[in-house]
Amino acid sequence: MWGMFVTRLKNIRENLKERKLDAVFISSVSNITYLTGYANFSKEEREAYLIIGNNLQYIITDGRYTHAIKKQVPHFELFERSHQTPTEQLFKKLKNQIKILGIEEDNLTVLEAKLVKKHFKTTKHFKLNRSIKTPDEIKKIKKACKIGDLAFEYILKQIKIGVTEKEIANKLEDFIKGQGGEFSFPAIVAFGKNSAIPHHQTGQTVLGLSTHSTVAQGRTELVERATRSAVRLSSPSKSRSGREGLIVLLDFGVKWENYCSDMTRTVFFGKPIRKQQEMYEVALEAQKKAVDYINSTKQVQSADVDKVARDYIKSKGYPNLPHSLGHGIGLEVHEHPSLSPKSKEVLKTGMVFSIEPGIYIPMFGGVRIEDLYTIRNERLEQITKAVPIACTIVH
Amino acid sequence: MWGMFVTRLKNIRENLKERKLDAVFISSVSNITYLTGYANFSKEEREAYLIIGNNLQYIITDGRYTHAIKKQVPHFELFERSHQTPTEQLFKKLKNQIKILGIEEDNLTVLEAKLVKKHFKTTKHFKLNRSIKTPDEIKKIKKACKIGDLAFEYILKQIKIGVTEKEIANKLEDFIKGQGGEFSFPAIVAFGKNSAIPHHQTGQTVLGLSTHSTVAQGRTELVERATRSAVRLSSPSKSRSGREGLIVLLDFGVKWENYCSDMTRTVFFGKPIRKQQEMYEVALEAQKKAVDYINSTKQVQSADVDKVARDYIKSKGYPNLPHSLGHGIGLEVHEHPSLSPKSKEVLKTGMVFSIEPGIYIPMFGGVRIEDLYTIRNERLEQITKAVPIACTIVH
Repeated sequence: MWGMFVTRLKNIRENLKERKLDAVFISSVSNITYLTGYANFSKEEREAYLIIGNNLQYIITDGRYTHAIKKQVPHFELFERSHQTPTEQLFKKLKNQIKILGIEEDNLTVLEAKLVKKHFKTTKHFKLNRSIKTPDEIKKIKKACKIGDLAFEYILKQIKIGVTEKEIANKLEDFIKGQGGEFSFPAIVAFGKNSAIPHHQTGQTVLGLSTHSTVAQGRTELVERATRSAVRLSSPSKSRSGREGLIVLLDFGVKWENYCSDMTRTVFFGKPIRKQQEMYEVALEAQKKAVDYINSTKQVQSADVDKVARDYIKSKGYPNLPHSLGHGIGLEVHEHPSLSPKSKEVLKTGMVFSIEPGIYIPMFGGVRIEDLYTIRNERLEQITKAVPIACTIVH
Repeated sequence: MWGMFVTRLKNIRENLKERKLDAVFISSVSNITYLTGYANFSKEEREAYLIIGNNLQYIITDGRYTHAIKKQVPHFELFERSHQTPTEQLFKKLKNQIKILGIEEDNLTVLEAKLVKKHFKTTKHFKLNRSIKTPDEIKKIKKACKIGDLAFEYILKQIKIGVTEKEIANKLEDFIKGQGGEFSFPAIVAFGKNSAIPHHQTGQTVLGLSTHSTVAQGRTELVERATRSAVRLSSPSKSRSGREGLIVLLDFGVKWENYCSDMTRTVFFGKPIRKQQEMYEVALEAQKKAVDYINSTKQVQSADVDKVARDYIKSKGYPNLPHSLGHGIGLEVHEHPSLSPKSKEVLKTGMVFSIEPGIYIPMFGGVRIEDLYTIRNERLEQITKAVPIACTIVH
């Protein structure tokens, strides 16, 4: 295990040399995890930093973490900051050997940077590139995907009239925990019209009722409806009443040994109407076109992949995709490369990213299909594998 | 509900006037929630901003949130940023009416600030003060505390030989979700020596075995031990073998309608030995001394409260408290006021904060007792109420 960190530190030091930096000041939690293996710092509050130079590597944190760091991060020297020994004390000690310091300008706050600059006059933006994964990292992401696949298979059986979005999200989480993983982000579960909101807040909407019903009113309504039309509700696909299939959009991911997966599936509860079916097919085809483009092109610009899928969706008369086509994934759910219109990145072997076209029609509903892929031998390998069929009809 | 946001915006505008700012640029998610009521933005990635001036209030976010924001935040004008319409477009539109802009220097990154400063030459640090809560906010925190109290009562019954820290944390979370709440942060569950690490990472340590056992080796060991000494293990308090009581430290909180609670309890599985008992009593007494100090003093400096408890612990020969004595709580688990050595804050009616003395002895164990309080009629009201007895012996 230590070899991995030695390699990463070596790479950083080569980077320092190229960029003519004497040291870097790392503040982002995912980079701290990447370089130390320690993943228990809060992502919402600042609890630690690293300073890495040619002949030094410090981890700066407080007394709450001292024992854990001494035990789990022996390859860094610990500077325990406290009210008596603020971080500035270390800055003072190092200011003579560090003339040019790299800082993570996309992570460090203005206030923190002011303090740093009091001691290190020249700072430059520094960005650690984690986009190309090692086989070991890919193995962990694959395991996270595998648990996600199982979770999807499990959750399909839980989608029933009367269940709420929140209940489905909770069942997903319980299942994933039972497999030893955890959610990599709060799941998005959207029923019916809610699926038109790409980042819908999973709530109390009840399946099988109008999307504005909440549990309290919904359950009463449900009993009444169920009594009136039990057969139609339990097997809507057989109905000839013209009742729409209900969209169920599930966007969730698993974290396994700090590495994330991410997947979206859109299923229909009941037989989809023509428009829903067409939206699904266009989204799926957009994903396929993006995949084919990558497989048939050398030196793939990620912005071009976005364009292929985006243009296809537009050509079918649907609204412009309101988000990027895809994103890299690893220690964070969203990291480089970005598959978006303004991205300058080239896709390379070892990268892991999502391709997730979507179509969202306000007050009607939305469809998103998201899978993760990695590039291997110049071809895409799909690593989320749950139900790769065109359209799932539950019950 | 809208009245609340009108008041908060009015307060901000008065603050602008006092500080001679033309507008503020809000980036922190908790402040966005505070001012809009919308709580679904990621805390790890930047998904939204607010700009508030005397005659304007914008919310800036992307197409993933458009529909939700239009519906749930009608009191703000929406600027939908995209690749075609970056945030800068709004900056350009506003640059003539905003000469001096407040920014959250403790939240905005260096890179973001650079972009802001391209358009607004003069920026000043701005900090929204949420430390004094309204009765409605306190009501929500109390409800979160109440669920936490019930969760503690429930979890005591689940603490059994053979259970892992992670299992206890999962059971706590399930219980809290069953009550309609959620964790306000990942719970810290620490068995035995692990409790000496104030922010221990809840793991696979098994109760009743050496703290370094993990499930795989642990369960086998457990069976052997249980066979050898079932009576002693199941009723250790009756044992005269001198076996130590096992420390179980539980630090967890509940989120209810976006408001957080936080509580730590240290219980003993089996009869505590004299040293454990003394640590518990000193921590409890330190908390009591802090409470008495607040109740008997006018214009309480929060740093002085920290000192009272800190000095008491030291006077008993224990190590210096390796963290602050307490912290404000509300939309975030940690917010103002801070009860710490360098704090300049004065405690006031309506504030809600923790008092959480702890004693941590490496390789032996730790005790922390944390309760939440609010100030009402110049006296502390304790709002976490679970098992206010000196020392709990489970089984």
